[in-house]
Amino acid sequence: MRFRSVFFGAASRAKLGTPAQQQRFRRTYSHLRRPDSERPCFGIAFDIDGVILRGRTPIGGSPQALRRLYDADGSLKVPFLFLTNGCAGSFSFPTVGQQDNIIAWLLLLIISRFENELIVAIGKGEPAAVMLEYGFKKVLSIDDYASYFNDIDPLSQYKSWGLKHSYERNYNSKGLQPKYDVYSERVKGAFVVSDPVDWGRDIQVLCDILRCGGLPGKENGHQPPLFFAADDLEYQAVFPSERLGMGAFRIGLESIYNSIHSSPLEYTSFGKPNPFVFKNAESILTKLVTHVCQVKETMMGEKCAFNTIYMIGDNPKVDINGAKKVGHPWFSILTRTGVFRGKDNHEQYPADLVVDTVGDAIDFILKKECT
Amino acid sequence: MRFRSVFFGAASRAKLGTPAQQQRFRRTYSHLRRPDSERPCFGIAFDIDGVILRGRTPIGGSPQALRRLYDADGSLKVPFLFLTNGCAGSFSFPTVGQQDNIIAWLLLLIISRFENELIVAIGKGEPAAVMLEYGFKKVLSIDDYASYFNDIDPLSQYKSWGLKHSYERNYNSKGLQPKYDVYSERVKGAFVVSDPVDWGRDIQVLCDILRCGGLPGKENGHQPPLFFAADDLEYQAVFPSERLGMGAFRIGLESIYNSIHSSPLEYTSFGKPNPFVFKNAESILTKLVTHVCQVKETMMGEKCAFNTIYMIGDNPKVDINGAKKVGHPWFSILTRTGVFRGKDNHEQYPADLVVDTVGDAIDFILKKECT
Repeated sequence: MRFRSVFFGAASRAKLGTPAQQQRFRRTYSHLRRPDSERPCFGIAFDIDGVILRGRTPIGGSPQALRRLYDADGSLKVPFLFLTNGCAGSFSFPTVGQQDNIIAWLLLLIISRFENELIVAIGKGEPAAVMLEYGFKKVLSIDDYASYFNDIDPLSQYKSWGLKHSYERNYNSKGLQPKYDVYSERVKGAFVVSDPVDWGRDIQVLCDILRCGGLPGKENGHQPPLFFAADDLEYQAVFPSERLGMGAFRIGLESIYNSIHSSPLEYTSFGKPNPFVFKNAESILTKLVTHVCQVKETMMGEKCAFNTIYMIGDNPKVDINGAKKVGHPWFSILTRTGVFRGKDNHEQYPADLVVDTVGDAIDFILKKECT
Repeated sequence: MRFRSVFFGAASRAKLGTPAQQQRFRRTYSHLRRPDSERPCFGIAFDIDGVILRGRTPIGGSPQALRRLYDADGSLKVPFLFLTNGCAGSFSFPTVGQQDNIIAWLLLLIISRFENELIVAIGKGEPAAVMLEYGFKKVLSIDDYASYFNDIDPLSQYKSWGLKHSYERNYNSKGLQPKYDVYSERVKGAFVVSDPVDWGRDIQVLCDILRCGGLPGKENGHQPPLFFAADDLEYQAVFPSERLGMGAFRIGLESIYNSIHSSPLEYTSFGKPNPFVFKNAESILTKLVTHVCQVKETMMGEKCAFNTIYMIGDNPKVDINGAKKVGHPWFSILTRTGVFRGKDNHEQYPADLVVDTVGDAIDFILKKECT
């Protein structure tokens, strides 16, 4: 029963966001409850960075484009969600981001061997809090984990990280007892939850954990499992050219690890272009329509409710490649407002359609679906 | 004449360290001025980390071993130097470290195109100060350079680096004018002087500089030259297992750069195992003997004064590989106190001799050279 309640608790978050987001969602979509006959036969998944926003600034006529998905009376006429490899927790629409992808795969993992095992969470913000919230019991952030080991980071004297709580909790240097016996208890899994901040330290400590079977500084041992929430090599932020993402960190870690260890690094990456993410989005859109159209879930089952789902993205390798891998009902639209700036279609990952902006994409979709 | 004076100024530093070190050196070696007939026919080069020290603690009987290189009256009987890829500026003996290797190759570069060009220096400590001291005129540390560009590091909000002067000099966010016109003047070279601290930011900014021809955020352009002072993948520090070195940073940067750019990264690495470093050490030992034995330099020329130079190191790939590549007069001795812990010889880079400690190495050398 414990597993089941965790499973469904997490599942609902994955679909409709945090409790606060769910409340906003119910407010926004409550007037969308219609009879089944009016159920829309298409849906839209938007990437955020480089399509809807650059940094915090709307781009490509995105506010106007999104407004067109609503009727004049404010009721939603086209179901959509945001499908991002970044963290977009402040959105009031259904958003599938890094944390949601993690949550989605946690559903698969939490009922297996990790729930009561010592794990390490890596990334900006509060990665351990995310994991604890979703049912893991023995989680340490890599900041806290590293603070147990004197001299694990030979460059620490040159840093004064902002994560002050970690420094305050530097058990080892203060002679305090660690929360868990990290010197004899192996780390059983490492989870890169969001973009790592201190790459040098994190790569060093991950290499220590992974090559020594979860016990840094000890003999080489079997590599514990390693998971990444996303695998974006680059993404479009405020700076004029793309910024390196979690995929770049993964490449750096992998190439270094493979240089110092005889067995190549093993890992699992979630997030786009992983087909799992698109299937998950299909399921969320289907449940959304089921929910708002009052169609009994038992009647719908897990079958996709749509003839077409449009993926609007700026990143050929991530957005377009992912949608193409899944195939029907996905239709890929590539904008020129982010990572992709080419005149013609992308050579390696050609989209079904290339447009300048998200506004143009909505133009195309609404014209096509109206006829 | 300017070039010449800079050249020789730098050359003397490369050989005998900073002015303070030179003074200590003269004090230590002044009683070693002997007639040519007593000139020693062998010399020794010691690696430091994992051979002489672990962190700041002497290992392998190194104090006793070094003492045996002096006569009972305190005069030096065996010429030696330290040949490290780390920073060992506090030593009072002739030491060839990261900075010295840089200085040595600066001798080659400073008389070429870089003297008056904008360059960026990367690494812990004060990398720009090192470059300025040796005659470069337009140097910015990567901390200062990055501070000119808003949003170049999307994770900066999660950091509060100890390099406060850089934050105080954040020209851009304060609306101040930068020291150089970094927005239109291309960076002509990047120099990794010592171990980088903020790997994520440094890899991001280096990728920006290198792929955009020295103008971050602009169109792709020809890659400016990139230099590394060393290429150590790992080194033995205080932590029980090896720590990642500058070579690991280079591998991470290279693999990421090659993933986002069509032309592979071009770079030059100095430091061991680069044969240049061993040739440079030969030259320094030769000049040292020339100096202390009052042999006219013109008589010696650049010819090596030794039948044998022993390289005592703990790192097969760096110390042993480097000495073997150069060949005569180098003889490689591998200790088991650092990176190498094997029972037999190293498989890929076998040494001429394997011993437990630096004390055992000195035992062997003195016995062999006395007979």
